[in-house]
Amino acid sequence: MPQLSLITLTTDFGEGSPYVAEMKGVILAINPEARLVDVSHAIPPQNIRQGALVLADATGVFPTGTIHVAVVDPGVGTARALVYAEIASQRYLAPDNGLLSRLASREKPTKLRRIANEQFYRQPVSPTFHGRDILAPAAAHLSLGLDPDQLGPPHPQLETLDWPGAVMAPNRIQGQVTAVDSFGNLITNITAESLAGVPTDDRTGVFCDDEHETRGIFTAYADQPEMTLIALVGSHGNLELAIVGESAAAMLGVTVGAPVEVRW
Amino acid sequence: MPQLSLITLTTDFGEGSPYVAEMKGVILAINPEARLVDVSHAIPPQNIRQGALVLADATGVFPTGTIHVAVVDPGVGTARALVYAEIASQRYLAPDNGLLSRLASREKPTKLRRIANEQFYRQPVSPTFHGRDILAPAAAHLSLGLDPDQLGPPHPQLETLDWPGAVMAPNRIQGQVTAVDSFGNLITNITAESLAGVPTDDRTGVFCDDEHETRGIFTAYADQPEMTLIALVGSHGNLELAIVGESAAAMLGVTVGAPVEVRW
Amino acid sequence: MPQLSLITLTTDFGEGSPYVAEMKGVILAINPEARLVDVSHAIPPQNIRQGALVLADATGVFPTGTIHVAVVDPGVGTARALVYAEIASQRYLAPDNGLLSRLASREKPTKLRRIANEQFYRQPVSPTFHGRDILAPAAAHLSLGLDPDQLGPPHPQLETLDWPGAVMAPNRIQGQVTAVDSFGNLITNITAESLAGVPTDDRTGVFCDDEHETRGIFTAYADQPEMTLIALVGSHGNLELAIVGESAAAMLGVTVGAPVEVRW
Repeated sequence: MPQLSLITLTTDFGEGSPYVAEMKGVILAINPEARLVDVSHAIPPQNIRQGALVLADATGVFPTGTIHVAVVDPGVGTARALVYAEIASQRYLAPDNGLLSRLASREKPTKLRRIANEQFYRQPVSPTFHGRDILAPAAAHLSLGLDPDQLGPPHPQLETLDWPGAVMAPNRIQGQVTAVDSFGNLITNITAESLAGVPTDDRTGVFCDDEHETRGIFTAYADQPEMTLIALVGSHGNLELAIVGESAAAMLGVTVGAPVEVRW
Repeated sequence: MPQLSLITLTTDFGEGSPYVAEMKGVILAINPEARLVDVSHAIPPQNIRQGALVLADATGVFPTGTIHVAVVDPGVGTARALVYAEIASQRYLAPDNGLLSRLASREKPTKLRRIANEQFYRQPVSPTFHGRDILAPAAAHLSLGLDPDQLGPPHPQLETLDWPGAVMAPNRIQGQVTAVDSFGNLITNITAESLAGVPTDDRTGVFCDDEHETRGIFTAYADQPEMTLIALVGSHGNLELAIVGESAAAMLGVTVGAPVEVRW
Repeated sequence: MPQLSLITLTTDFGEGSPYVAEMKGVILAINPEARLVDVSHAIPPQNIRQGALVLADATGVFPTGTIHVAVVDPGVGTARALVYAEIASQRYLAPDNGLLSRLASREKPTKLRRIANEQFYRQPVSPTFHGRDILAPAAAHLSLGLDPDQLGPPHPQLETLDWPGAVMAPNRIQGQVTAVDSFGNLITNITAESLAGVPTDDRTGVFCDDEHETRGIFTAYADQPEMTLIALVGSHGNLELAIVGESAAAMLGVTVGAPVEVRW
């Protein structure tokens, strides 16, 4: 990995949380040249799955070697490990509670260390804020060129969460809503690849939560009039359902976990 | 325009949206030295007018040559153009849907190009996220010194929205609320210039939404006691109505579009 | 103080407020090399006390000489002073309305100047936005090496707010909730030092708002099952009450000011 002073932060602390600022202060006190980018602090509290999805969707585009610090950590202060992982071209620091498992389900980590070297901790370590006292200083030291092997011993493997894919059947794909974006669009686990060969005209129906139906698979939101339920492939290559100009989540009362079926 | 590695972002993606982080990652992967500033991601979804007002109010103070990327783009993936515009001392990249029309209503663009050179696109281009795949890389290349003429052919003119001014009559000015700020203050289209010669004492009444009245035009919020409706000239030179220490929008139930009249 | 181009911003403007962006634009127009970090813009409007707590908790970890600009300023445009203060290893620019009084209650300022030199103002100065027109340019000039004595004359002393500590009695400590964090955890003014010698097992009860009780003082949130009220020492060394996996503030209906008592 090339050395890079670029560090991103992803947490469930809430936008505007001064806890984020403390992490930044700790980093900058160690490496005043570090450059900081917020990925998101709007992960719902303790929602490891949503954090894992955001990391998987948003971090891959960063420059090779970027250091991503992620904190969704309900087990802070307990025996769960903190880890350093190299996945694809990126570097991650996070609690090992499944937060990196979406990334790792796509591409195997090429390096995995447990963060355990107290030499790089901020002292004293608060049992309730390892993001500030362990992960932030580790990230800062890495950004100065620290060999990640110095952070601690090899870590055997990451905790995994289940990431079920859509189920293919003849003339039918069964999936579910995995995330709701800030527009209220319903993102599913049905991939563009699985839709190859499926008609995009009105022979195809997309059904959500058993009661909402739309016909056809479109390209752009504006391909249908305002207030229309529309299915299209979103910017990460997954089928999504949207209501043009409105929030589908709010108008349909649909949220993460709702079943989505494509039939043709 | 001087070359500057400073890039701002204005979107309707919502604070904490990982879509913003993806745009930043794409920019930094092209120009790791780019410096990024968020103008706002709290533009209400698809609200081009509010986005246009924010761009007009907040971007003029940036250093000459700053690159401003703006994405409020309900027509993403359709035939609407993406454009590069130089207006006053700033550079803008945005969909041509009226988002730049408030700026352009004040000062004519000195350069206007259609963004069409696929050489500077991120591939493949998602039809639902041109901000990430077309505007972000264009901004990054400009920040590295790309001649904007390389982005595409001249663009004849910007889409315009109607920006009605206040109506002057003898002893009366009729305007409206154009924005509500984060304090709940009601910003109007009645300018300080139009108020020249209007008495600032209690001979002058300011009426909002036909049912709320305050007398006099003040200088500072604290010129009146808490909970008092007050009229004053705000930080962009427009008359605004505030309730001292509270949100006027919430307490009066007034929003964008409400009529405001000054009588004396 | 060392010269540092690092400037933080703390305001009650709201996350996503373009007023914050204007301050950044003004700073960057004076010092294009300034590096900007947001501490928080989610201070409740006009809530000087919450702003003072955030500054005291979040800014101490920044590099020595960091310039912190703070704007919670209901008296903007009136006779209240704007000040420059050096406290501990940090530099602050703020209205003198109590916003720096939590910091100053812990450590006496080593330098205190009134900001009054119009040479460093942005002109014209809006009476409603001194953050943009006076504090932001002052911060930018300081980041370029301006001697703070040039900002204005010595300022005799800071306005103070009352910061009551917890009251110790035999087998009893009486305090209160001073802040609610983004997880809904209830932070109190009962310090870890005052808890020295207090049993941490179930001989000790913690009572909140007279009707909620939990026994024992724990180390980590996950020391108790989900949905359990738990008391523990938080990351700034103060006793806090949390509901594991949920928001204590929302579930208990408790907010700032509620009494908290430890009995053993």
